[in-house]
Amino acid sequence: MIMKLYTYFRSSAAYRVRIALHLKGIEAEHIPVHLVNNGGEQHSETFRQVNPGELVPALIEDDFTLTQSLSMIEYLEEKFPETPLLPKDLQQRALIRAFSLNIACDIHPLNNLRVLQYLSKTLNASDEQKTEWYRHWVITGLKALEAQLTLSNGQFCFGDQPSLADCCLIPQVYNAKRFNIDLSDFPKIESIYEHCNSLDAFQKAAPEAQPDAA
Amino acid sequence: MIMKLYTYFRSSAAYRVRIALHLKGIEAEHIPVHLVNNGGEQHSETFRQVNPGELVPALIEDDFTLTQSLSMIEYLEEKFPETPLLPKDLQQRALIRAFSLNIACDIHPLNNLRVLQYLSKTLNASDEQKTEWYRHWVITGLKALEAQLTLSNGQFCFGDQPSLADCCLIPQVYNAKRFNIDLSDFPKIESIYEHCNSLDAFQKAAPEAQPDAA
Repeated sequence: MIMKLYTYFRSSAAYRVRIALHLKGIEAEHIPVHLVNNGGEQHSETFRQVNPGELVPALIEDDFTLTQSLSMIEYLEEKFPETPLLPKDLQQRALIRAFSLNIACDIHPLNNLRVLQYLSKTLNASDEQKTEWYRHWVITGLKALEAQLTLSNGQFCFGDQPSLADCCLIPQVYNAKRFNIDLSDFPKIESIYEHCNSLDAFQKAAPEAQPDAA
Repeated sequence: MIMKLYTYFRSSAAYRVRIALHLKGIEAEHIPVHLVNNGGEQHSETFRQVNPGELVPALIEDDFTLTQSLSMIEYLEEKFPETPLLPKDLQQRALIRAFSLNIACDIHPLNNLRVLQYLSKTLNASDEQKTEWYRHWVITGLKALEAQLTLSNGQFCFGDQPSLADCCLIPQVYNAKRFNIDLSDFPKIESIYEHCNSLDAFQKAAPEAQPDAA
């Protein structure tokens, strides 16, 4: 049984799952779904059979199909508890989940491709307005994240091991850097980003390392 | 030790946690934070000390502060496993989390108060454009949810007990009905909504039952 991950090299959500798979050393076949070419392959009839929500990523294990990056990582965590991405302490687990959900609920969905497309196509937003929209939600979100990292030593978000929080933070920061967000106001985040990217699992999961990278 | 929940009667995210608390029979003091009055009390200095992200809800237990509704419910689930909101089967747990994240990541954040405010104040969107934005994301999301409920018998989202999925679905549907979304295209969702609302825990968690309801 080998898992399959439907992925797109630049998708933040797919990138989170790729990091988790590499940290845990789980092999998975990667099937690229191009979110822009061919009108967006996530809208194709073929992919809608996989995920009716038309969103990447999707994880397949035999006849079991799972959507939503955070549910995938929790599933991998429960099924393959070696190299844990959540500690045993209940309050620490909760704080790590909250940090991760800050990204997955309060930053990323607002800057998703489909939302930026709606802004331009339906609301006729200019490129400047879209950029300002992007910057507004990312900067608001990064401020809240930085405030939660007071106890971090600058290597990982929580403690001295990578966790679910790092799986979520690194793709979000990668995305922010693509949009020229200045990280100097967020020194903890910048330091964690650099440290994680020095590690093998994060490098293997990075967009540029994917076969479908442009 | 009594927990405190910072809440707003109409907040979908607070409503999710209220349902979970009532289903598990956990007592918590409710502290209202009015999201509109006084320029939005979530932006006050006092509340920013509780949650720098300026978002409701927040859960306090002694000196432990937790944000993000789904991390709260997972925490309650791990700390008070009686009346479970997630089953033991790993794949079922994963599907329930994915369903819940479909709401918490892909529907609700786009229709949050702060986003609707940004649309009108910064992008000068008209009331019609805001309503269409709201409808677009809710209907897209409900379609994806309905497609995931094929195995539901119409009482709860998954199986014959309420779960995390129902904690998330009912507030989202309540919200959609406020915006006059027609549920007749979503018969499973409508049936689950009616069944859940016949139960005591859901009734006690409902917006109208809160002391801070207008």
